[in-house]
Amino acid sequence: MLSVGVNGYGTIGKRVADAVRVQPDMTVRGVAKTSPGHVADHATSIGYPLYAVSEDEIASFEAAGLDVAGTIRELVAKSDVIVDATPGGIGEQNHTLYEQLETPAVFQGAETPAVAETSFNARANYDEARDASYVRVVSCNTTGLSRLLAPLKEAYGIDAVRATLIRRGGDPDQPSRGPINDILPDPVTVPSHHGPDVRTIFPSLSIDTMGVTVPATLMHLHGVNVTLESTPDIEAVRDLLAKEPRIFVVPESARIEGCGALREFARDAGRPRGDIWENCIWDESISVSGSEFYCFQAIHQEADVVPENVDALRAMFNLKDAAESIATTDERLGVSFRQHSRASEQVFTERACDD
Amino acid sequence: MLSVGVNGYGTIGKRVADAVRVQPDMTVRGVAKTSPGHVADHATSIGYPLYAVSEDEIASFEAAGLDVAGTIRELVAKSDVIVDATPGGIGEQNHTLYEQLETPAVFQGAETPAVAETSFNARANYDEARDASYVRVVSCNTTGLSRLLAPLKEAYGIDAVRATLIRRGGDPDQPSRGPINDILPDPVTVPSHHGPDVRTIFPSLSIDTMGVTVPATLMHLHGVNVTLESTPDIEAVRDLLAKEPRIFVVPESARIEGCGALREFARDAGRPRGDIWENCIWDESISVSGSEFYCFQAIHQEADVVPENVDALRAMFNLKDAAESIATTDERLGVSFRQHSRASEQVFTERACDD
Repeated sequence: MLSVGVNGYGTIGKRVADAVRVQPDMTVRGVAKTSPGHVADHATSIGYPLYAVSEDEIASFEAAGLDVAGTIRELVAKSDVIVDATPGGIGEQNHTLYEQLETPAVFQGAETPAVAETSFNARANYDEARDASYVRVVSCNTTGLSRLLAPLKEAYGIDAVRATLIRRGGDPDQPSRGPINDILPDPVTVPSHHGPDVRTIFPSLSIDTMGVTVPATLMHLHGVNVTLESTPDIEAVRDLLAKEPRIFVVPESARIEGCGALREFARDAGRPRGDIWENCIWDESISVSGSEFYCFQAIHQEADVVPENVDALRAMFNLKDAAESIATTDERLGVSFRQHSRASEQVFTERACDD
Repeated sequence: MLSVGVNGYGTIGKRVADAVRVQPDMTVRGVAKTSPGHVADHATSIGYPLYAVSEDEIASFEAAGLDVAGTIRELVAKSDVIVDATPGGIGEQNHTLYEQLETPAVFQGAETPAVAETSFNARANYDEARDASYVRVVSCNTTGLSRLLAPLKEAYGIDAVRATLIRRGGDPDQPSRGPINDILPDPVTVPSHHGPDVRTIFPSLSIDTMGVTVPATLMHLHGVNVTLESTPDIEAVRDLLAKEPRIFVVPESARIEGCGALREFARDAGRPRGDIWENCIWDESISVSGSEFYCFQAIHQEADVVPENVDALRAMFNLKDAAESIATTDERLGVSFRQHSRASEQVFTERACDD
């Protein structure tokens, strides 16, 4: 059993811990957090040993009635590997500690690519993380784009990608973020940094991205155009995407109009925290004109990188090959929406939520 | 003096009436409204003769203390021309009345193109409306795209346009519209109807558009990609756009981050209702890579078609040529932001609103 320490138990860290916990070949050694509060209470209630980020903070955890198993240094020393889910830029600072204690680590996409030997997406470049000590799971948006582009590239070749990323302003637990009633070019410069980040996965890809931020918290929405190297049949493209393990082709019959209905659908399905690990591509949006492909996809920013973190751990330790790892992660986590997408549309009709 | 009746005195109608009123060659014959309320009060306070859409409603206006000059039929009969600013689809129904009374009319972009002899954008196809009896001013989004594409097409040629339109959910006075905290593919099918609407102005243009609706009320935001037929110099493109009468190239020094700051800038400038008649293109977003052009532009959905309605009237009655009409409309209305955009950036530094 791979013993995994989670450093940073926030939005991503708590989800990765829960995903690791249900896998057959890994276990949560402990989780490290900076301060007490309901999230730390929850970690303790699950039974995760709780570590403090510094000695100075142990007293505040104890004052809150929480047992502290030690400091982050002890967790790093005891773990086979660390998943660093600290805020962007902190992971890079933590790198020194991981190296000192010779503990491999997985970083998140908010870190600079240079923090790791390779950037990672399970579908696109699993094997590049094999035997690596430091791996960076790309951001939610880059993960979403990589999952879409990998099958298109393999099947048809890609000449150019143009994507507009309409980004949520903040997560539901980030009340200090905006915008309110505004639409922001973000960044205002074109192309945005997202395109270069996708090139950490597909080095020679021609991709331009534009970023926009809006007053919403639930998911990101991508408007994607891909100029393919060949001219596909639209039904073949649909089938190609519907077969992908982490793509949910949202059928028209589901009557899912936007991100809110997608999240409600996930809550109805009993998903933990209402999470959607899959890219959600509206079937009606899939469009082919000559060699031009278009679609809309929604990306749950809190969730889509979670299965990728699990797969990154397996790649680094050579526990399984890509297909086996993805299948195991998804089966244990419950990534299942795609199985309904073409076969049993009746299910969706019954679940329609707003008519 | 051209005598102009305005049928439908709502968001667009009241603005068009105010714009007509300040022109040297036209006057407001009267405005027609379906029901009393603060907007009708305001029309009366300005001195616009108020007409009721039907006999049945005259009593309700009188009960509200408003003098009614007659019904819409009388206004149509007395006017040289009608600007129909009724809700989408009603204009088409009104067409019969205008024909019966042999009164030419300008329709708005929510009507089907077939309602008129030509669709209209002053910058792109003014001459096609000369001597026409029925003209359709295209929608706010199509107007915004046409103003941007016309100079690019003339200077460089256009191979293909791909635009993502991030649309406001409703205007500030439409509280029943959504979405709240959601991002909607709208329409979910690709391409959206906006591309074909742009082709009512540029018939052979290759353009694909994607529509998205978000929880905002202030402006639309367009992420635009144009594949040009030649390879321009970026400074030349900037200068080309900055010279356009109804394009405001937003300088970096203005520190205008989004639509809210743009509207605040317009309010500081004393614009009526805080209106922005111009396309607002962020200077930093203008990007050229080979023959690929990118930019972000914000479009004030309540305002950008207003000067176009005035120009449509002049074209139909052969009062001026395109350049003269645009110059007159803009001078009388106060369309002036572009004059600051390159020459006097200091103005913007002093006006910065959020630091």
